[in-house]
Amino acid sequence: MRIAVFAGDGIGPEVTEQALRVLEKLELPGLELVEGDVGGAAYRKHGHPLPAQTLDIARSADAILFGAVGDFTLDHLERALRPEQAVLGLRKELGLFANLRPAQVFAGLEDLSTLRPEVSGKIDLLIVRELTGDVYFGEKGTRTLEDGRRQGWDMMSYAEDEVRRIAHVGFKAAQGRSKKLCSVDKANVLETSQLWRDVVIEVSAEYPDVELSHMYVDNAAMQLVKNPGAFDVIVTGNLFGDILSDQASMCVGSIGLLASASLAEGTYGLYEPIHGSAPDIAGKGLANPMATILSAAMLLRHSFGLEEPAARIEAAVAAALAAGVKGGDLGGNAGTKEIGDAVLAHL
Amino acid sequence: MRIAVFAGDGIGPEVTEQALRVLEKLELPGLELVEGDVGGAAYRKHGHPLPAQTLDIARSADAILFGAVGDFTLDHLERALRPEQAVLGLRKELGLFANLRPAQVFAGLEDLSTLRPEVSGKIDLLIVRELTGDVYFGEKGTRTLEDGRRQGWDMMSYAEDEVRRIAHVGFKAAQGRSKKLCSVDKANVLETSQLWRDVVIEVSAEYPDVELSHMYVDNAAMQLVKNPGAFDVIVTGNLFGDILSDQASMCVGSIGLLASASLAEGTYGLYEPIHGSAPDIAGKGLANPMATILSAAMLLRHSFGLEEPAARIEAAVAAALAAGVKGGDLGGNAGTKEIGDAVLAHL
Ligand SMILES: CC(C)[C@H](C(=O)O)[C@@H](O)C(=O)O
Ligand SMILES: CC(C)[C@H](C(=O)O)[C@@H](O)C(=O)O
Repeated sequence: MRIAVFAGDGIGPEVTEQALRVLEKLELPGLELVEGDVGGAAYRKHGHPLPAQTLDIARSADAILFGAVGDFTLDHLERALRPEQAVLGLRKELGLFANLRPAQVFAGLEDLSTLRPEVSGKIDLLIVRELTGDVYFGEKGTRTLEDGRRQGWDMMSYAEDEVRRIAHVGFKAAQGRSKKLCSVDKANVLETSQLWRDVVIEVSAEYPDVELSHMYVDNAAMQLVKNPGAFDVIVTGNLFGDILSDQASMCVGSIGLLASASLAEGTYGLYEPIHGSAPDIAGKGLANPMATILSAAMLLRHSFGLEEPAARIEAAVAAALAAGVKGGDLGGNAGTKEIGDAVLAHL
Repeated sequence: MRIAVFAGDGIGPEVTEQALRVLEKLELPGLELVEGDVGGAAYRKHGHPLPAQTLDIARSADAILFGAVGDFTLDHLERALRPEQAVLGLRKELGLFANLRPAQVFAGLEDLSTLRPEVSGKIDLLIVRELTGDVYFGEKGTRTLEDGRRQGWDMMSYAEDEVRRIAHVGFKAAQGRSKKLCSVDKANVLETSQLWRDVVIEVSAEYPDVELSHMYVDNAAMQLVKNPGAFDVIVTGNLFGDILSDQASMCVGSIGLLASASLAEGTYGLYEPIHGSAPDIAGKGLANPMATILSAAMLLRHSFGLEEPAARIEAAVAAALAAGVKGGDLGGNAGTKEIGDAVLAHL
């Protein structure tokens, strides 16, 4: 049970530290933690945001606990060396094709959303985003056209097997929830989306118990404003998933509580809070570690099948919240360590 | 002063009819209206959603007043024959490269938004969306790879002149408002976006009075939830603009009031409500024609420089609203003709 710990930049190290305290407290037999450098921190030390030794550590592990990457002081670097590239590199190299982004409002925290409480209170959805294809990983470049104009270009595409495997993840997730799956695409304009839709429909034959619907991405962005409670599981491509999952997270209003998983075939996965590196509060002991602690719970459940300790962690976080222990992002004033202490106390 | 009137499908004809009553009441000298078929209606009559004679009418006119297209009973047709293709065809054939989508909350209607009134009440933004490039109009297709797998693909690209001309529209719009322009892209992943960003920065040298910022599209989708009032003018590409402008419109909560313009170089433009063909209420006299009436005002202002009658129309709509004349979409029960009557009465 080897977990790679990539704390990364900004608040990454401090929130990860608290999640590790929680994992250690559980005294799981055979637990081994091994740290690695990613993002801007790795660039400064090794000249690359995803050094070879980090990838080796990832490959030698059964799962990754990830903090955050991002450092605007490195914005001047060429794209391939910028911190975020570590994220793209890990996804591609480790085949992390399925991103699970749950968004639900915690009881008692409805007021943190900018949506009216009667709207936000109903949010309980899961976005299943494809993570290793689409326009993210196609050929791309900048060229000079014959007439001398510069042009930037990126190839968007999906092959049927790429769609099929993420569709299976979507249907299975729907089976475990309310048996409704909404596939989001832009099939009225894109051939990539038309193939996506065709394949999702093919796969649906294997899940007669799940009700499949289709929605254009522009309409999905509208419905997430109008009535996010109507969604249950959404499955979509890499680019649309990037936009919609961030929109949905913000609807919840407590981004410091949202965890995510990026899964490979089998049990391997990378787990991370959806908040970023928050450089403005880094190193000040102000960051809320709950999303990272909840990511550790997801890790135990998905990668090791450890439902009981996962549920214990989640219950401890809920209990700490119920006891009024809230970070600044939730309108409270508890610091990073104080929140970690509170979760440990409720474990 | 020749205006092509393309009413289209669903509620298109009934809302357009009320806008025409308003235009006629103004007794503008030289006004000539010429109707044409588009969308599903055109497909049924001529076998194509954008017949040659419709394009001829469009070309012979100085501006287009557009209703709505869309007819789900034609969803089985191949993509090129579906109603929405009329929209794409008109944009491309007429060079309608600049889509202006204002979104602001009308005083007294804050409660229609699903956002809290203190958040929605501050919304007053303009999205400038590029409309004839990007992944919409690149090469695309479905192919069988060497190993037998089907793949759907679409080429995304922007050339520098395409970015430059929409950037100018964005900066000029910002000059006429609060002198802040936010360019939205995904430059951390896409070469198309990197070129977009580079060119927007080049163009910014000509507008030293405008403060330019850049935002990734996923973050923009978040900020539109968190604090939409912080945006003023947003300029973005075709695909991101499709998603973000619909999200922003829904934040306003009164989609039956939002108009849009799609402009070519010079004064030519197409004007339409942003709501769709709403087949569920079509032909029942229930649709709110205000967005189409406001589109006619935009038309007079942008294509003919007729500020005074444009402002008169807008004031009449505001007066009708203030007098409590509200369609079902605004929580009222005024019908299509009744709303038209009320606007005429206040003109
Ligand atoms: C950092 C960036 C490349 C990444 C993405 O676009 O996938 C991020 O936005 C995310 O969603 O994890
Ligand atoms: C109908 C569709 C092709 C169109 C688009 O995606 O541009 C529509 O969503 C719009 O925004 O006008």
